[in-house]
Amino acid sequence: MQEDAGPPTARARHRDEAGIEFARIVAFSDGVFAIAITLLVLAFDVPTSSEDLGSQLWDQRHELFAYALSFAVLGKFWLAHHRFFSSVERFDSTLMGLNLLYLAWVALIPFTSEVLGDFSGESDAVIVYAVSIAGVSITFQAQIVHSYRADLVRDWAKPLAHRFTGPANYWIAAVFLASVPVALLSPSAAELMWLLTFFAGRRISDRFGRVRTR
Amino acid sequence: MQEDAGPPTARARHRDEAGIEFARIVAFSDGVFAIAITLLVLAFDVPTSSEDLGSQLWDQRHELFAYALSFAVLGKFWLAHHRFFSSVERFDSTLMGLNLLYLAWVALIPFTSEVLGDFSGESDAVIVYAVSIAGVSITFQAQIVHSYRADLVRDWAKPLAHRFTGPANYWIAAVFLASVPVALLSPSAAELMWLLTFFAGRRISDRFGRVRTR
Amino acid sequence: MQEDAGPPTARARHRDEAGIEFARIVAFSDGVFAIAITLLVLAFDVPTSSEDLGSQLWDQRHELFAYALSFAVLGKFWLAHHRFFSSVERFDSTLMGLNLLYLAWVALIPFTSEVLGDFSGESDAVIVYAVSIAGVSITFQAQIVHSYRADLVRDWAKPLAHRFTGPANYWIAAVFLASVPVALLSPSAAELMWLLTFFAGRRISDRFGRVRTR
Amino acid sequence: MQEDAGPPTARARHRDEAGIEFARIVAFSDGVFAIAITLLVLAFDVPTSSEDLGSQLWDQRHELFAYALSFAVLGKFWLAHHRFFSSVERFDSTLMGLNLLYLAWVALIPFTSEVLGDFSGESDAVIVYAVSIAGVSITFQAQIVHSYRADLVRDWAKPLAHRFTGPANYWIAAVFLASVPVALLSPSAAELMWLLTFFAGRRISDRFGRVRTR
Repeated sequence: MQEDAGPPTARARHRDEAGIEFARIVAFSDGVFAIAITLLVLAFDVPTSSEDLGSQLWDQRHELFAYALSFAVLGKFWLAHHRFFSSVERFDSTLMGLNLLYLAWVALIPFTSEVLGDFSGESDAVIVYAVSIAGVSITFQAQIVHSYRADLVRDWAKPLAHRFTGPANYWIAAVFLASVPVALLSPSAAELMWLLTFFAGRRISDRFGRVRTR
Repeated sequence: MQEDAGPPTARARHRDEAGIEFARIVAFSDGVFAIAITLLVLAFDVPTSSEDLGSQLWDQRHELFAYALSFAVLGKFWLAHHRFFSSVERFDSTLMGLNLLYLAWVALIPFTSEVLGDFSGESDAVIVYAVSIAGVSITFQAQIVHSYRADLVRDWAKPLAHRFTGPANYWIAAVFLASVPVALLSPSAAELMWLLTFFAGRRISDRFGRVRTR
Repeated sequence: MQEDAGPPTARARHRDEAGIEFARIVAFSDGVFAIAITLLVLAFDVPTSSEDLGSQLWDQRHELFAYALSFAVLGKFWLAHHRFFSSVERFDSTLMGLNLLYLAWVALIPFTSEVLGDFSGESDAVIVYAVSIAGVSITFQAQIVHSYRADLVRDWAKPLAHRFTGPANYWIAAVFLASVPVALLSPSAAELMWLLTFFAGRRISDRFGRVRTR
Repeated sequence: MQEDAGPPTARARHRDEAGIEFARIVAFSDGVFAIAITLLVLAFDVPTSSEDLGSQLWDQRHELFAYALSFAVLGKFWLAHHRFFSSVERFDSTLMGLNLLYLAWVALIPFTSEVLGDFSGESDAVIVYAVSIAGVSITFQAQIVHSYRADLVRDWAKPLAHRFTGPANYWIAAVFLASVPVALLSPSAAELMWLLTFFAGRRISDRFGRVRTR
């Protein structure tokens, strides 16, 4: 812990010099993720009457799909945030601003997920959801690119620049944005695209990423 | 705190090598638990008119039962998670994935608990609740079994393998699943089964667990 | 940080031996407090039409009173929890169980506070609120008494036993319980009692508590 | 970590002497911020029918404006809180009380933001929002002024007294309060004032603040 380390200055601050502050940013981000991921449950509709209780609960399967998908997406982004921030050595005000912008997209997911759960067959709902995920992905990537440009990463992470900032990282954003026109024709096809990206895609993007780092 | 400990690798990482990251996972899990347990309160219905206010509040006794039960169940699972993770030395990506899956079940409880509170006399509501608790229990056990198989636990915890992974640990999941067919006949009988498990059961399962470890 | 400190045993564990675990309990409690205190805002009713918007917002003054009161009460309990736990050296499973029971009462306040805000002139609403605050206060006191009896406190806190466990500490619970019969006659008089306790009462109870410790 | 550091006394306590307690206050504040900022999402109205889904979602642009504004405002206040608390060396009970009062205003934003989103063209909604932001700003400034008066700041921060407590810091509160009469004539003009303050204003106030510190 630093003691009277001097006034915060405009230059980027080293993680150890500013240990508590770095920890607060990370903890705050974790807090927003934990809350957003737990608020996803509010998308479920509690049945209003005991008549047809079974079928009302069965209708919640769309909400369950949206819940599972959003939980997986947010969980994966949280893990990626976690992994990336372990390579960050210093932070500057731009990184903090980008991180807040990123969290604003993350915190939007409980709403877009609820819309998707309620209207999973509708193009508009699918588009809103796809845009929100793309927003999370792009603002995350912006943080990584900035950290490399502003030289905020730890030494061991420097050779991994291509892995973290290369084209493979735009895979998720690209697929979700590409699903927007698809959703206009067929919402189900767009949702299928997401699942393919999410599960098969990672394998592909990992391989892409690794090729160059070695 | 580690300094430039090198890039995260595919092998499981030691808790101290990855101290901050381990702490983040645990803190994130605690956050989800704290939020889920506090969201249970949303199950209560605020009366809508001052007429019959007393009887509307009195009607909330079912919600209170569901609240108390869910708070106790989540509290107990949190303590168990707490206890188990103190014996974990390293983590790998499977453990992190299983933990997220586990948290997805945990975060579902505020919904299933609200359904139970609103329709405590209905089979469907009781079944949904029982399945959600069994889901939490099974995904928790999956983490423990994986940690032992992948050798992620601390030395002192190794002789306790049977205690943590033995059949006694499936007690809660078994009773809640067994209550599903019971609920079809009598929802109240199913709820009674849970209470018996929860209070008497622990004593029994503790004894079971201890027999072999000594 | 302890390393392979050995298996958790039945005896109470020292704070430093079990540093991480102690920190987790405290952080979990803080989390529940922070969430409950922030959920208080959900008690406000967002107006439904732009007609008479001003008067609909003005009607929220009862909600504002309940919000301010509950924020102050929860804030004060949090500070007291904070202060007391800094004197705790070890914890046992009873203390953890009592702490969970305490948190269950704390997490109930957003509901009872909303009821109070919506029906501040009704005896039943006032009684429900008074009982919930008394519940928080009594389960807090139970933790303190247990910690002293089971010898879990730090050395410097031992001479303060009377201060922490003496009759002055039952002041809040006593006044809130005493306000129950008062509320049957006059809800406003009961609310006035709370405010007097809360502001004047502290001064009195502090003086009471200090007399004996010197 | 302090060991049996002696009983908490009435005098202000040094940050290191009371390390855990200081960290708890900061973590609690962060928790309230993280929850409040994530609850902002609840202001969005999930469409109720699939008819006109597109236009119902398009209607949410007012909510999106309120969401983005409130996220930016709360994010900025969080960063400022973060920056200021890194200069605080000790705390006393007044600072803790002021911090709680401040958090009570922060936790109110999800409500006032929802009102603004739903009725962005109405004077009353704009006034309620402006007052809530001014409340956050003033109670924040009160903490800073108190910390300087009670000599709670670190040595390096002492020469910055004018920067932190000078008139430039009342800029935000002043503009939001000044927007109240403006909103009576034109709600849109008031909202425009905020945006100007928020983006241009900072630059101006920064320059003001810096002039004297050099």
